[in-house]
Amino acid sequence: MNTVFSVVGDESYVCVCAAPSPKEIKGLKWQGSAIGTAEWGGVLLRDVLVAAGIDENDPDIQHICFEGYDEDISGSTYGASIPMYKAMDPRGDVILAYEMNGKELTRDHGYPLRVIVPGVAACRSVKWVKKIEASRHESESFWQQSDYKTFSPNVDWDNVDWSSSPAIQNMPVTSAITDPPPGSVISRDGDDDLTVKIKGYAWSGGGNGIVRVDISVDNGHTWQDATLKKVNQQPGRSWAWTLWECDVEIPKGHTGPIEIVAKATDESCNTQPERAEGIWNLRGVACNTWPKLRLIIKE
Amino acid sequence: MNTVFSVVGDESYVCVCAAPSPKEIKGLKWQGSAIGTAEWGGVLLRDVLVAAGIDENDPDIQHICFEGYDEDISGSTYGASIPMYKAMDPRGDVILAYEMNGKELTRDHGYPLRVIVPGVAACRSVKWVKKIEASRHESESFWQQSDYKTFSPNVDWDNVDWSSSPAIQNMPVTSAITDPPPGSVISRDGDDDLTVKIKGYAWSGGGNGIVRVDISVDNGHTWQDATLKKVNQQPGRSWAWTLWECDVEIPKGHTGPIEIVAKATDESCNTQPERAEGIWNLRGVACNTWPKLRLIIKE
Repeated sequence: MNTVFSVVGDESYVCVCAAPSPKEIKGLKWQGSAIGTAEWGGVLLRDVLVAAGIDENDPDIQHICFEGYDEDISGSTYGASIPMYKAMDPRGDVILAYEMNGKELTRDHGYPLRVIVPGVAACRSVKWVKKIEASRHESESFWQQSDYKTFSPNVDWDNVDWSSSPAIQNMPVTSAITDPPPGSVISRDGDDDLTVKIKGYAWSGGGNGIVRVDISVDNGHTWQDATLKKVNQQPGRSWAWTLWECDVEIPKGHTGPIEIVAKATDESCNTQPERAEGIWNLRGVACNTWPKLRLIIKE
Repeated sequence: MNTVFSVVGDESYVCVCAAPSPKEIKGLKWQGSAIGTAEWGGVLLRDVLVAAGIDENDPDIQHICFEGYDEDISGSTYGASIPMYKAMDPRGDVILAYEMNGKELTRDHGYPLRVIVPGVAACRSVKWVKKIEASRHESESFWQQSDYKTFSPNVDWDNVDWSSSPAIQNMPVTSAITDPPPGSVISRDGDDDLTVKIKGYAWSGGGNGIVRVDISVDNGHTWQDATLKKVNQQPGRSWAWTLWECDVEIPKGHTGPIEIVAKATDESCNTQPERAEGIWNLRGVACNTWPKLRLIIKE
């Protein structure tokens, strides 16, 4: 192609998959580590579509569909789509990436070209891109039609109607406690005033920044503020995660197991649900309940 | 002005204020009725700003500030601001309205001109507009700087630092049960299979549509799907509320009080928190906990 595309760099995006669910689900057992932030370099998808003659006001184009080079064991090609308005939004920052953290993409990350759709579940950020199609309809792939969707907790494999729920795009606000490891033993060494430094990340979809992370050692009865390590991002385009840390005050005299919970709030004032029971879904996706860390406090 | 502005009609927007909080707060006691959906007619704010020579790429313009004609008892003029990117977003649908439901605005609704900022807390939809200013800074008004903000539950009037929290713009997902009235007595009339029709609304900020409303009669242990009355809205621009209803199955043999709870989920998979304890804030704003309805079931 002879068209010059603007190259997007110096941007941090998060690829986020779903989070852990405490009830039985089918599929990958996602954990808090199914997320990552990197600097992606590439061309704006919008520029590619405009250069290809796509008219953003064409009512027959509602979705941009991607196909990868990867196939599952049945020979089906991986595919996904995003709404046209996200693809064409000058502030949507959807790119076709060929660089990650300043280096050529590796094979595992989608060499030679992958889509990066910031703010959206990473299942739409198709790797090893083979084909891009402007369409009236969503991708017909299994993963768009019958996989990454949420349902009411009363829906299970015997009564699920996949067409009744929209494909997940933007993800909800979430967070994780990443340090220290679960079950760590912390010794008071005779000190009555004990604080434990805990660390983690928080993130929300749709470009919503994180405004607060609250920490509790008494299951949400009282709270302490974590300190956020804010990344400089444009308003409404908070694609990167926010790392945080907190010197958690352990109650005086407490010994034995203690459970620490966290809860993030995003710019739309959305926050994480306390229990999974109300958001359980058969695929276990978009589970953003309060993360919990169990520590052992010794004398 | 001689410029012709496009008139926005056939659109439904919600003005939403904050929701009820079960713990003591200072300020208005918002209830589930501090919300409304109407068809607003007016001119796009974006068109007015462009006609006035405002350059959306000017780094010195980050906020659009509004001032009304109304003053409080101290003589302070009501004011608020929204981010420049929302004001200029062609899909943001911010208008200067002079019509409501096809008729000239009434005085109570902001005659002759009010701002309508869809998807955003209605405190930014300034009425009786006197002045519009493009600025590097947010509105200096009390209501922007020291009022409509959320804090951690550990922040109270003795330790609040208003500058530490951003002014609320987009609101979180919420819902209400509006019918039947609380405390209604429902008679089984000897029937073992009893259903009660309940109705309500659900809404979310930022243009996020409602994908589901779940109803529970056992405090979230099991759920029933409500039927949504979807309004035709463009993707990512779901500004109107979604009305819903559900024929709730009352457990066989149950008599006496029963508590029905609802929970909405939006397109970003955000949902409502179960308890207010984790989101309590000193002004009681953005409280979007599960709505509850108590009924009395008679033999």
